[in-house]
Amino acid sequence: MSTATLLLVLDIVGIAVFAVSGALAAVDKKLDIFGVIFLAVATALGGGFIRDALLGATPAAALTDWRYLATPAIAGLVVFFVHPSVARWSRLFLLVDAAGLGLFAVAGTRKAIDFGVGPLGSSAIGILTAIGGGIIRDILVREIPHVLHREIYATAALLATIVVVIGDRLSLNDVVVAILAICVAFSLRVVSRWKNWAAPTAKAVNLE
Amino acid sequence: MSTATLLLVLDIVGIAVFAVSGALAAVDKKLDIFGVIFLAVATALGGGFIRDALLGATPAAALTDWRYLATPAIAGLVVFFVHPSVARWSRLFLLVDAAGLGLFAVAGTRKAIDFGVGPLGSSAIGILTAIGGGIIRDILVREIPHVLHREIYATAALLATIVVVIGDRLSLNDVVVAILAICVAFSLRVVSRWKNWAAPTAKAVNLE
Amino acid sequence: MSTATLLLVLDIVGIAVFAVSGALAAVDKKLDIFGVIFLAVATALGGGFIRDALLGATPAAALTDWRYLATPAIAGLVVFFVHPSVARWSRLFLLVDAAGLGLFAVAGTRKAIDFGVGPLGSSAIGILTAIGGGIIRDILVREIPHVLHREIYATAALLATIVVVIGDRLSLNDVVVAILAICVAFSLRVVSRWKNWAAPTAKAVNLE
Repeated sequence: MSTATLLLVLDIVGIAVFAVSGALAAVDKKLDIFGVIFLAVATALGGGFIRDALLGATPAAALTDWRYLATPAIAGLVVFFVHPSVARWSRLFLLVDAAGLGLFAVAGTRKAIDFGVGPLGSSAIGILTAIGGGIIRDILVREIPHVLHREIYATAALLATIVVVIGDRLSLNDVVVAILAICVAFSLRVVSRWKNWAAPTAKAVNLE
Repeated sequence: MSTATLLLVLDIVGIAVFAVSGALAAVDKKLDIFGVIFLAVATALGGGFIRDALLGATPAAALTDWRYLATPAIAGLVVFFVHPSVARWSRLFLLVDAAGLGLFAVAGTRKAIDFGVGPLGSSAIGILTAIGGGIIRDILVREIPHVLHREIYATAALLATIVVVIGDRLSLNDVVVAILAICVAFSLRVVSRWKNWAAPTAKAVNLE
Repeated sequence: MSTATLLLVLDIVGIAVFAVSGALAAVDKKLDIFGVIFLAVATALGGGFIRDALLGATPAAALTDWRYLATPAIAGLVVFFVHPSVARWSRLFLLVDAAGLGLFAVAGTRKAIDFGVGPLGSSAIGILTAIGGGIIRDILVREIPHVLHREIYATAALLATIVVVIGDRLSLNDVVVAILAICVAFSLRVVSRWKNWAAPTAKAVNLE
């Protein structure tokens, strides 16, 4: 399997997983079949849409390759009919979601660098690509985005973007850097969930 | 009346109707006069803004023709002062809204095709153009978007985009295709409302 | 100090203040440290991101100058640790926020004019730039945006954009016009807060 094929496969898998998380949220809120598919697609592609609109990479990538749209639509449709089984696979789901998180962070950072954006901006775009879809999902079902107050999630994406930015600065091999970055995000996410780590919240204060 | 003039008139009418729906939601939530006008404009133009940002059709169309901005602003202002009467016209409102839905779906799909986007991507953009403004309206007043869980709405937009995509593939006359697509969306929307049709929701399941 | 330096300083100060307002909202909702920084950055830069995506000014300005990203991130971090003191500075905060409002309105309008957008469109972009970040902040913490139903806020931004548009039409000196516009927005905002002015809301009606 060539590198390009590998990346495409990882991309499609990441999209499918994010789509499932969106569809499950929609089923939970009793949306209709269209709402389930819409939330699946928005969760899977929303981060990339924000990335492409801010970079000026238009028409957005997900619009120009039919597989990027068909994958989350079909994933949403499947969840609509078989969601009990999906919910039962929650451990597998965590693992694939963690891989998708790392992958989206890497792909977003890489694309920003290719558009001439500096290190800090590229890292920001990488994080937005990775968590943007989940934020859109939560806003659409009227929740405060989970990523902003639950567990180590965005931090894992942040680390992946830092690895990519440093790797680019040191002119290291792109593929090696990408795999390393995805592994870093994946490991931190899975371990933090397993150990129940959480990011600190601000101390409550008495305003005298 | 020339075709271009007809399209402009339909566009302006569609914008006005969506603006009224936004303004009514704002009045209902007791927003101030600015909030009413803002919600009117955001509902009317939001779908087109999303479309243009994702296609790279910038500066966005609604920014370059003052009538696109003036129409929803004035509609919002009128609703602010005369909303009881507007609410009384709910049957007329349904009909014009159904026409606006079809029109926005057609216009969005057509524009995506002109930007070289494929059939699936063009259909997605058409749907986003038609329902994006309503989703923004509902998010701003903190509701789960109606289009995701109420009645046949997005489905009507979807059918219109399919007609346009197929018409384009078969190289049929643009104007004929557009009118047919608008009629399809309009009829499905009005009949579904009249017959109280709704899209199915996922079956509740007992997770043993 | 040159004009360019002055504008940069004002810009950075405006970003910092909006970042503080976002971070305070995040602390109030008990978001974690990442959530606080994210909300700070989104509030500070969100309006500019919307502006740049709609104008096609990509990659977005805040991505290409690291200071625009570093400033709100650091402001968010500081608020996370010292927020009681920040809350105590509420009067100073009002003043700087009012200056930031005027500044963002002016910068947005000016950029739209430079992109060839007409008066009404430029005014709309100026308002979006000034209030977009606050709207994103409120949506993320699940509030109806304050700017849509509280006090004279957007109206102050609107007046600033009108001053800039008229100044451009009359070919007046850019810097003089900008300062005048900022003063107008600043004064209206501070005076309206001091006098407890509010924009009118629609009259409740009995729908017989």
